Amino acid sequence: MSEDPVVLTRTFLSPPVRDVHRSLCQWMTAAGMSVSTDAAGNLRGRYPGLDPSAPRLLIGSHIDTVPDAGAYDGPLGVMLGIALVESLAGRRLRFGIEVIAFSEEEGVRFGVPFIGSRALTGDIDSELLGTIEPALRDFGLDPEKLPAAAIQPNEFGAYLEFHIEQGPVLESLSLPLGVVTAIAGQSRLAVVFRGKANHAGTTPMHLRRDALAAAAQWIVSVEQEAVGTPHLVATVGSLEALPGAGNVIAGEVRMSLDVRHAEDEIRRAALSRILAGARAIGAQRDIGIDWSLRLDQASVACDAGLVARLGQAVATTGLPVHRMVSGAGHDAMVMARKVPAVMLFLRSPGGISHHPDESVLPEDVDAALRVGMEFLRELEARDA
Amino acid sequence: MSEDPVVLTRTFLSPPVRDVHRSLCQWMTAAGMSVSTDAAGNLRGRYPGLDPSAPRLLIGSHIDTVPDAGAYDGPLGVMLGIALVESLAGRRLRFGIEVIAFSEEEGVRFGVPFIGSRALTGDIDSELLGTIEPALRDFGLDPEKLPAAAIQPNEFGAYLEFHIEQGPVLESLSLPLGVVTAIAGQSRLAVVFRGKANHAGTTPMHLRRDALAAAAQWIVSVEQEAVGTPHLVATVGSLEALPGAGNVIAGEVRMSLDVRHAEDEIRRAALSRILAGARAIGAQRDIGIDWSLRLDQASVACDAGLVARLGQAVATTGLPVHRMVSGAGHDAMVMARKVPAVMLFLRSPGGISHHPDESVLPEDVDAALRVGMEFLRELEARDA
Repeated sequence: MSEDPVVLTRTFLSPPVRDVHRSLCQWMTAAGMSVSTDAAGNLRGRYPGLDPSAPRLLIGSHIDTVPDAGAYDGPLGVMLGIALVESLAGRRLRFGIEVIAFSEEEGVRFGVPFIGSRALTGDIDSELLGTIEPALRDFGLDPEKLPAAAIQPNEFGAYLEFHIEQGPVLESLSLPLGVVTAIAGQSRLAVVFRGKANHAGTTPMHLRRDALAAAAQWIVSVEQEAVGTPHLVATVGSLEALPGAGNVIAGEVRMSLDVRHAEDEIRRAALSRILAGARAIGAQRDIGIDWSLRLDQASVACDAGLVARLGQAVATTGLPVHRMVSGAGHDAMVMARKVPAVMLFLRSPGGISHHPDESVLPEDVDAALRVGMEFLRELEARDA
Repeated sequence: MSEDPVVLTRTFLSPPVRDVHRSLCQWMTAAGMSVSTDAAGNLRGRYPGLDPSAPRLLIGSHIDTVPDAGAYDGPLGVMLGIALVESLAGRRLRFGIEVIAFSEEEGVRFGVPFIGSRALTGDIDSELLGTIEPALRDFGLDPEKLPAAAIQPNEFGAYLEFHIEQGPVLESLSLPLGVVTAIAGQSRLAVVFRGKANHAGTTPMHLRRDALAAAAQWIVSVEQEAVGTPHLVATVGSLEALPGAGNVIAGEVRMSLDVRHAEDEIRRAALSRILAGARAIGAQRDIGIDWSLRLDQASVACDAGLVARLGQAVATTGLPVHRMVSGAGHDAMVMARKVPAVMLFLRSPGGISHHPDESVLPEDVDAALRVGMEFLRELEARDA
């Protein structure tokens, strides 16, 4: 179910999303859920509880993908939600369950991520609405009804998201599952080093203002800062050297910087040191240093009570409880603004994601399902 | 006289070359030269000497340019040759002088440099001939006559080239002129670092194989090697990081490496150390290192006797004699295979070349002309 005949690419409300909805709808219905699509294109399956007034459990993830994607980033979380309801075999819990397939998380189609979950938290502003309105109408949705997609106070008591880890940590520890305690905050910057382009053959070393040599020195220092700060990650992932000829000293280098940590203070302090390092290198080499902040996203803590219960569920299934921080953003990060939220990570073989080789191990999916069932029992016990 | 209406771009045998030939021909004729165009498109003005059997002095440079060029790289050397003959005001020396405007030096049109001077040294092989033949015919030249463009043994006793320095050294020393003792040898390589692309947020520092961080460490070491080896220059001028997204650790980095020195042994030893450094970084970081040698061009020494005489000429005009190595290739490098050669560099304000801002100071041009006249006197004295 892809926009591309060869690789998997399925962006927000693209035609193959209809096929996904059709399949999910069949499975949800078969599991006893009543299904609807909200005005943001989120597919929502409701499984009623014994007490209609009890806050419900929301389980979800997204069904859009990056271009040339793997099969599991997003859809696995939706499938596990449906499987969990299916495993109840029609048995009612005190509280209802809703499984949601968010229409948009990756930010590919409009450059804005989390559109699906933002509809639930009421965070679609008029600018974003103006951008996505034609796409909504093309899909047969009514933008006027977006407010009705937003969740009500006390409508949900918890949000649970299953997701592949998208990193190598669980695999490196030989663990199938991880309980997410927080989603790291992020700083993203565009950084420019400006020196002087000159002839690589005729400019002696002491008369150079080599923007790429300066950038290299800084990239090494960025890595050192991250290695020296526990749990910090800092990455220069893109770099453009201008003019970019082998026989010309680079006059300008444009880079990205991405810094993440679960504690915002630690992240911001590290970023300050990294930028002070850039300034020092610039002063030493007569290189102009400019940067602009593109994203400063605070970390989001998962709900401590739910983290404890999900950990208990993992322990009950006989698995080691590994708590970890998510370095990537997820719908849970948005949902946590309005609903106590928690995530369960599944090991990513090879740490691979956003790539056709992305995978999960069947036994890990099985373990996640058993943990989910224990988690439901935990919630029943709490509410009893 | 440009192919471009706005900027100066004049490649090998392009239409504006006809206009250049027309102007040069007028000036050469006015200075007493007989003018012809050889089969490679080199414009050649002959000023006879008193002794027709005496080896002649060849003075030249090129009239093609890089795209969006400055006005002086090449043409200045041709104009100074004509001005020097003009300054004789018809007076005959014992030896004849030929001023040559080489048709091709920059290698822009066919990706092969020095076509003009290679015609004189008989270095146009059949592959190159096949490439340029249509262009020769389009310009009205007869490829069959290329062998006649080649110089004969003892036809020329010396080759002199005036050229802008294209670097910042003379300006940094507040000197108008430099006597070139050698043209540096060059090693040019394509270097690839292969790590593993991974999510910048979810991959802890200790589980990364970051090709860009490794490349940065190496670029710093390349610079250190050059700074620590007198007169060596080493440059990473182009760098491509893949996939090149801010939130993805670079899995592959492709770079250029350019290493130059007047002594080939020193250059090759430095290159060995630089590549050993790359291997060590690769081993330490589990990064694959590949390189391919794109150019290994030996250094070319100028003729010691001519260097001494040109230095004497500089001293006679009352200027300090600064001997220097050319880090860039020039027609003199090719001509030196067949004729004793020497070059006189003129200060490049700001070290700028291959750019519209390229310039020379009028007083430096005047000094170069006076040195040229002293040089003619030196040669007359030698031959007397």
